[in-house]
Amino acid sequence: MRYSSCYIPTLRESPSDAEVISHKLLLRAGMMRRLTSGIYIYLPLGLKILDKISAIVREEMNAAAFQELLMPMVQPADLWKETGRWEYYGQELLRFKDRNEREYCLGPTHEEVITDMVRGEVRSYRQLPIRLYQIQTKFRDEIRPRFGLMRGREFIMKDAYSFDADAAGAESSYKKMFKAYMRIFRRLGLKFRAVEADSGSIGGNFSHEFMVVADTGEDTIAFCHSCDYAANVERAEAVWRGETVQGDCLPCEKTGMPGARTVADVAALLNVPPAKIIKTLIFVVDNTPVAVLVRGDREANEIKLKNLLDAKVIHLAGPDIVKKVTNASCGFAGPVGLNLPIYADLELQGATDYITGANEADSHNTHVDLRRDVRVAAFADLRAITAEDICPRCGGKIAFTKGIEVGHVFMLGLKYSEAMHATFLDENGSERLMIMGCYGIGVSRIAAAAIEQNHDRYGIVFPPPLAPFECVLINLDQHNAVVTDTAEDIYSLLRSMGIDVLYDDRDERPGVKFKDADLLGAPMQLVLGNKGLARGVVECKDRRSGERCELVIENLRENFSLWARQVREHWEALYARQ
Amino acid sequence: MRYSSCYIPTLRESPSDAEVISHKLLLRAGMMRRLTSGIYIYLPLGLKILDKISAIVREEMNAAAFQELLMPMVQPADLWKETGRWEYYGQELLRFKDRNEREYCLGPTHEEVITDMVRGEVRSYRQLPIRLYQIQTKFRDEIRPRFGLMRGREFIMKDAYSFDADAAGAESSYKKMFKAYMRIFRRLGLKFRAVEADSGSIGGNFSHEFMVVADTGEDTIAFCHSCDYAANVERAEAVWRGETVQGDCLPCEKTGMPGARTVADVAALLNVPPAKIIKTLIFVVDNTPVAVLVRGDREANEIKLKNLLDAKVIHLAGPDIVKKVTNASCGFAGPVGLNLPIYADLELQGATDYITGANEADSHNTHVDLRRDVRVAAFADLRAITAEDICPRCGGKIAFTKGIEVGHVFMLGLKYSEAMHATFLDENGSERLMIMGCYGIGVSRIAAAAIEQNHDRYGIVFPPPLAPFECVLINLDQHNAVVTDTAEDIYSLLRSMGIDVLYDDRDERPGVKFKDADLLGAPMQLVLGNKGLARGVVECKDRRSGERCELVIENLRENFSLWARQVREHWEALYARQ
Repeated sequence: MRYSSCYIPTLRESPSDAEVISHKLLLRAGMMRRLTSGIYIYLPLGLKILDKISAIVREEMNAAAFQELLMPMVQPADLWKETGRWEYYGQELLRFKDRNEREYCLGPTHEEVITDMVRGEVRSYRQLPIRLYQIQTKFRDEIRPRFGLMRGREFIMKDAYSFDADAAGAESSYKKMFKAYMRIFRRLGLKFRAVEADSGSIGGNFSHEFMVVADTGEDTIAFCHSCDYAANVERAEAVWRGETVQGDCLPCEKTGMPGARTVADVAALLNVPPAKIIKTLIFVVDNTPVAVLVRGDREANEIKLKNLLDAKVIHLAGPDIVKKVTNASCGFAGPVGLNLPIYADLELQGATDYITGANEADSHNTHVDLRRDVRVAAFADLRAITAEDICPRCGGKIAFTKGIEVGHVFMLGLKYSEAMHATFLDENGSERLMIMGCYGIGVSRIAAAAIEQNHDRYGIVFPPPLAPFECVLINLDQHNAVVTDTAEDIYSLLRSMGIDVLYDDRDERPGVKFKDADLLGAPMQLVLGNKGLARGVVECKDRRSGERCELVIENLRENFSLWARQVREHWEALYARQ
Repeated sequence: MRYSSCYIPTLRESPSDAEVISHKLLLRAGMMRRLTSGIYIYLPLGLKILDKISAIVREEMNAAAFQELLMPMVQPADLWKETGRWEYYGQELLRFKDRNEREYCLGPTHEEVITDMVRGEVRSYRQLPIRLYQIQTKFRDEIRPRFGLMRGREFIMKDAYSFDADAAGAESSYKKMFKAYMRIFRRLGLKFRAVEADSGSIGGNFSHEFMVVADTGEDTIAFCHSCDYAANVERAEAVWRGETVQGDCLPCEKTGMPGARTVADVAALLNVPPAKIIKTLIFVVDNTPVAVLVRGDREANEIKLKNLLDAKVIHLAGPDIVKKVTNASCGFAGPVGLNLPIYADLELQGATDYITGANEADSHNTHVDLRRDVRVAAFADLRAITAEDICPRCGGKIAFTKGIEVGHVFMLGLKYSEAMHATFLDENGSERLMIMGCYGIGVSRIAAAAIEQNHDRYGIVFPPPLAPFECVLINLDQHNAVVTDTAEDIYSLLRSMGIDVLYDDRDERPGVKFKDADLLGAPMQLVLGNKGLARGVVECKDRRSGERCELVIENLRENFSLWARQVREHWEALYARQ
């Protein structure tokens, strides 16, 4: 492409409302524009990146024998009522009525639609498995759209669905997708991790997330230094090592501690470690308050509680509810005498001689023995994993990293087929439920994640597989006919070699051209000017390393191929190190 | 592709709610499914057709130096309020609110969005022209969605927009698109006509529609037998041949004619031709009633009236309004003494001795002279063209045909740039408005229109450029190892030749395979069975003509190439005849 005929409106300054680097750079590089909160226009260069991502996704989905279809963005409410998600999905589901007052939503995902279609087609086990996918525009009415393409409201997803007759088939579908995702993210040239994950509002039996590793990620990944274990902290098991405190303690005693509201306050006042204090948290679970106990130096994990209770909606109780159920303001709740279902973290099994709130203003109980003084409904893993924990698989050391979720595979099991009665007749003529899986990739989010992971102070440093151009050819002396003739020859040569090249033929100063080339992030730059041409060379720059060298023009086909291979090998070494 | 691993759920019977042949066949051929009123799922084969159409559209748009981008489906109300279309677009514009009570719509078109973007980018004439397009999903909340993909609510369009600095540039953009559209529809292998058209709710100075010729089309095209003239009847000029009746007539006289409500009633009663009667129609134009006069044997053309008065909203008055403004029920309105703006068709210039309604129940006026008895606000072309009319270009004979609108190019002029203040600084530093054009192609509608034009009693007969497969290879004896080995060899051979082939390897009866092959509409069929193989031949069938012949397997590469060329040439001859 010739730069002069491309619509690439680069900006010198970052718009003030751009918060993260990918958002800033996508705007500055003329790849997208904001239409309104969380809704963006993909300009030609941005669309080109999405097309490169989609092409790789398509190839791997087709290779895994999933077939592409296209479902609508507007979905009827009736189907969402069948699964109950019309009620439970939350306000991210944008609901509206048409001119005839019929209810619809903008699809944030398509389980209902595809299950409805498949149940209408399938009669016999002979028609299974069915494995389908689409690349389509989704809408989620985020409460706080932010970070550009990272958490927009309208975005592009690849979503795939599998319908199998039995568990072995469903597992095979899941594994096919897991492997396809590994290939997709490797081919995209991203540093990523596949991690165990919670299934969230999609539901199902188990799931894996694919995380692009980046400091700016919203998710935290716990991983083991010794084995392959990696999980989203939302889900990572905190292993109970079986220590229980032995022996009795003094009777429970209420003690006034005016103003000592936090674990830190109480620990300081009594000069005890936070680990000797029990934190009591009140959650509202499907409209019912429950209490959760964790050690004072731990954080409760809301998602583990939600899964334990198989709940639909869960949130921390507000001050009014805390006051109502504990008779005290926040900070003084405690399990002794509390008339609520009480769930305690595994670590508190056999806990004795602990300090807790006393359900009274400015008071805490000391010498609390959970076995003696409290009726615990269940002990379970209810806390967040920490750096002190061990790997649940091998006992190795746990570390943490930040990630951006770009893919998620779910073993749905019977959740949707049961709710929507998606059945088939098996070999014996008995009616059975199909076993489902679903598999998402955030196509537009990948573009942002790739930039979060690959940029420097000058702009984007695209991994070659998703760069909008492989190479930028800069003509420094546009008005010099000899230079321009040679540049045109080089442009033709590169195109004849199948290189996706942007030829900067604009009537602009060299500084502008250098800046734009760095900003746009093509992995390779060729720079031709009067001086170089006099010596018969074109300068080249590896965008990532910044390393420069000169290529003799006379034998450019071979010289360029050699250099391009080096640049690609450096990138491949980078991917391989992950 | 192997049929056994393709998701192609064909149906023996047409679903009862399918009204037109394209709708029936798309469902029966397993190419799409209905999700809800006017909203469809494109199954893999349907999507493949859309992809083939899109690929041709993209190639020609890129060749015309328009660049692809992608705009959102959800659009903020503010922009539509700027142009006034929030108020005037009608209920097809699906409006809704997000969780924060902000107003949005689902985009039925993108003039507002792209004008907003471009006005934010362009400062100088040096940045123009800007020529962009997208292929994107649109939504129009049709009052009565019908005919499957022909008039759905959610559909796929290619929409393009041009921004130029001056009239010459805008004309060049328009011509580029007109030519690109001619190439696109020719390459798609469709019989079509480019016709002069009304600009409708998009607005602008002039426009052309591209119509696929088909008996089932909702539009009527008037065209000239002698020259290139063709126009939508909504727009086609009815030429006034300048005849005026000379001389005076008797004084106007009110005559009782009980029950004579229609032109036919009055003509029969008085034994005069309908051409001697004036029809008076009451329209409500932007909330104001006006009267329109046409000859009794003519039809008024509402769109011509709308354009004459530069109106936003227009409709025929209901009985209440007719009663109120004429003092009589429908059928007795007349221009004499009528206190409304009166617009008369050109043909009525100098009309004398006519019969009209008398604005009184069961009464008509005779001997009406328009010059003498009526104050006409304006004479204009306000009637529909008829077979008696002459070509407005060359005076030749006019004929009519039915068409399906699949493309529309609009010279928008300043409509949007004025409303949204989309300006630039010209060479002299003066601020000027950009001149716009917009250009649409109904991608999903093309699939339906192609079928309306190309089908027979057995199924679809796809033009080769948009067939989901070029060739179906039918294995008649799936369980015979020798036949199957040879079929596999032929399948490999065809693929190696770059033929897009569907290999029917299913364990089904020959009758099922023949029926499905005819239904799916691939232009070529190869049939291999035990008997043919014994003689060393494969049978082939041209799907369109039904002609069969045999190809010797031994030299199949050459034999198939030869036959395929024949089949293609027959199709090309068909296109060329249009």
